[in-house]
This record gives sequence, C-alpha cells and structure tokens, in this order.
Amino acid sequence: MPQPPIWNIRLTLTYMLANTPTTPYYAVIFTSIRTDIEAGYEEMAHEMVRLAALQPGYLGHESARNELGITISYWESLEAIKAWKAQSDHQIAQKQGREIWYSSYKTRIALVERDYEMIL
Amino acid sequence: MPQPPIWNIRLTLTYMLANTPTTPYYAVIFTSIRTDIEAGYEEMAHEMVRLAALQPGYLGHESARNELGITISYWESLEAIKAWKAQSDHQIAQKQGREIWYSSYKTRIALVERDYEMIL
Repeated sequence: MPQPPIWNIRLTLTYMLANTPTTPYYAVIFTSIRTDIEAGYEEMAHEMVRLAALQPGYLGHESARNELGITISYWESLEAIKAWKAQSDHQIAQKQGREIWYSSYKTRIALVERDYEMIL
Repeated sequence: MPQPPIWNIRLTLTYMLANTPTTPYYAVIFTSIRTDIEAGYEEMAHEMVRLAALQPGYLGHESARNELGITISYWESLEAIKAWKAQSDHQIAQKQGREIWYSSYKTRIALVERDYEMIL
C-alpha cells in the first residue's frame, strides 16, 4: 500500500537538511561553477554522494545549484575528510572535475562550532 | 563603449565564488526550505545581502537554491557575526523568516581552517 502523501513530504524535508549530531563536527564546503559539458556529470555526482555515505565518519550532505553550485558534506573529523579525499573513485572524480566539469571551484574545510535550527 | 564579453564573464565568476582572504575566517552556513509564500521574499533576500555587505568584518557570500537553499556568508570574527545577527533590519527579517518564508532551516557557525581553489 502506498504511503500517504504527508509521510513522503516529511521524509523529503528530513533528508534535505542534513541531520548532523551535536557540535563540534566538520564541514567541507565545495563551491563550484560548471562548464557546459553535461556528459557523465549527473552520474558522477550521484555516485560520489553514494560513496561518501559509505565512508567512516560521514555525517550527511546538503546541495543546491543555480549558476553557482554549493555542496556541503559533514564529517566527524579531519581524518575522515582526509580518507574521503584519498578514496580512489573520488580521486578519479576530482581529476575529471578539474579537467572536464568545473571551470572554477573553491573547497573550504571548516569546524562547525555551533548550530541551531527550526524544523517543523 | 561596452566591455568585450570575456570581461563580463570574468567579473561574474569572480563575484559568484566569494573571494575570501587567507584562513582562518568564519562561515555562517544557512540551509533552508521555503514555504510557498513568495510575497516579499526576493526583496528581503536582496536587501539582506546588501546590508550584510555594509557590516564590519563581512568577507563575502555564496548562495544557491533548488528544493533546498544554501546561503553562506563569510566573516572575519565571531564578533562580526554576532553584530550582524543583532542588526535591527536583520532581526526583523529573521522573525519574518521564521513566521512566513521558511518551513525549516538550520544555521551553522563554522571556523574555516583551510581552503584551496581552482580559478581559471
């Protein structure tokens, strides 16, 4: 039997705002501008989200794109971030990103010291 | 005489990726889900960007929205963030945000420890 619509909406909302634990934890803020090359991009982006979620210390992610794209992944520690940066499929994606999909990007590693929210 | 197109493109790129100084500095990550109410929202959002840029310690901002919206503002210090949170027009916008424009949001205050970039 299909779920009533209200449940689907709530699950989506919960999914989109990353449900991070109490502070402190780390954020990797990846801000990027895409090239016009579409081939392979969406598949890569989805695969990277899937693989990141399998890494030790992964806490969640949030993403949005207009002209500018912002993807934030949340991590328990700098060690967890370092391990994800070195993960082999991710290394290939980073190289292809520089060569094919992104015209510019900036990555920022940040310690989240405080957070507060309104979740209805 | 109009600028040649290449200049316009470069200005846009420079504008969209926040040109932050060397680390450390602070990021305020505001992740939100909108209600269906459009009235007044765009005007408020633009006005808040304009006013934030007038605050002492403001370093830049980046923003994108699909179902999820992410706005990151960058600041020199926690004191600068505190002063902006208390700014009177911003206080009104925060109250209206909770009551009218956002169904859910999360704010994270983070110390950017490292960054690296590719700017073509």
